[in-house]
Amino acid sequence: MPVDPNAPIEISAYPWVPPFARGQVRDFRVRWALEEIGLAYRVRLLAGPKRPPDYFAEQPWGQVPIYNEGDVHLFECGAILIHIGEKDERLLPRDTPARMRAIAWVLAAANSVDPSVGAINDIDLFDPGAEWGRLRRPAAVERLHTRFSRLADWLAGKDWLEGRFTIGDLMMVATIRTVADKSLIAAHPILADYVARGESRPAFQTALAAQFADFVADPTVGE
Amino acid sequence: MPVDPNAPIEISAYPWVPPFARGQVRDFRVRWALEEIGLAYRVRLLAGPKRPPDYFAEQPWGQVPIYNEGDVHLFECGAILIHIGEKDERLLPRDTPARMRAIAWVLAAANSVDPSVGAINDIDLFDPGAEWGRLRRPAAVERLHTRFSRLADWLAGKDWLEGRFTIGDLMMVATIRTVADKSLIAAHPILADYVARGESRPAFQTALAAQFADFVADPTVGE
Repeated sequence: MPVDPNAPIEISAYPWVPPFARGQVRDFRVRWALEEIGLAYRVRLLAGPKRPPDYFAEQPWGQVPIYNEGDVHLFECGAILIHIGEKDERLLPRDTPARMRAIAWVLAAANSVDPSVGAINDIDLFDPGAEWGRLRRPAAVERLHTRFSRLADWLAGKDWLEGRFTIGDLMMVATIRTVADKSLIAAHPILADYVARGESRPAFQTALAAQFADFVADPTVGE
Repeated sequence: MPVDPNAPIEISAYPWVPPFARGQVRDFRVRWALEEIGLAYRVRLLAGPKRPPDYFAEQPWGQVPIYNEGDVHLFECGAILIHIGEKDERLLPRDTPARMRAIAWVLAAANSVDPSVGAINDIDLFDPGAEWGRLRRPAAVERLHTRFSRLADWLAGKDWLEGRFTIGDLMMVATIRTVADKSLIAAHPILADYVARGESRPAFQTALAAQFADFVADPTVGE
């Protein structure tokens, strides 16, 4: 397992999140990419629910993960995936046309799928029972189904978005599976199969276990 | 002006959008980047409000822009900006640490700012007067102000996100200025100055004029 307290690559993570967020917090995506290529990393756990003021100099939104490696200091999981991908052809092809297609799918997950997923989760997870959500949900669901349908059309007959696994698939699978209402994925069997294909990768499973292993039972630890 | 019907780079654009979207449709960002480095491009206008079925093979969501250049076929403006940036150090530094910082800001605009802007525009532009929006807007505004405050903190004392203009700034300025309620920007003078700094660049102005020049008065043209 690539978690190693002496590794030159450092990421940040939370020692506690609510149960619905376990396996979803975005350091998971970085762990997954590093596991795919067997690259060791160490984890800096952020103690307590409040960020130390100097953390905002590393991560402007105060979130996780950051990524430090020598003089490379990054935030935003999509950018970190691009950086890791550039280390290994197994994650990101070297020739420009294929390389840029993979990067396009990272952006597609970040900007064209994630906001539609987030709009549903805002209703279902972060403000359940609210009147605005009851009124808004049908339109938000319709928007997500439109995106998921287009993506399923694209994936028909393919194992991966561009035929072979890349950081684009890693980001897309990780994004789709954040939706709390899993019936929204199940409604698109091609997408459900695609997500299952991603989740069955050994690196996915190892990364998931590594994120869970860092969670403690008591949310006040470190405060 | 780099618009040239014989240019090897092709982008797609709409011949008509509602007034509120003029100057905001995302081909604008690609035009802006190309203007910054004086690279010629031709424009394929999509006739009518419906996409031809084969367009989805180029752009899975049926949106604009696509970007074709030889064997490079791209969608998602953030990815297109990375590709254009790699052509010219004026848009994207060559050394890895600085290059990846600029790419991190492209992702930050796409995934950490744009969804919060979009949530307000969904209320103000796309469903004005709806009860759900009346109930939801205060929380959506608070979320956007939190992001804008963090970004303003980051930009304090700087002209650009990493000291010099990059595709990260191009994407961020273009993202911030899509917010329809401009008072949300004005509330953060550092951000308002930052957006004005971006908008005052000659390449911004030329690109804006080029997008407007492609709009026709009659939305049924080409149907």
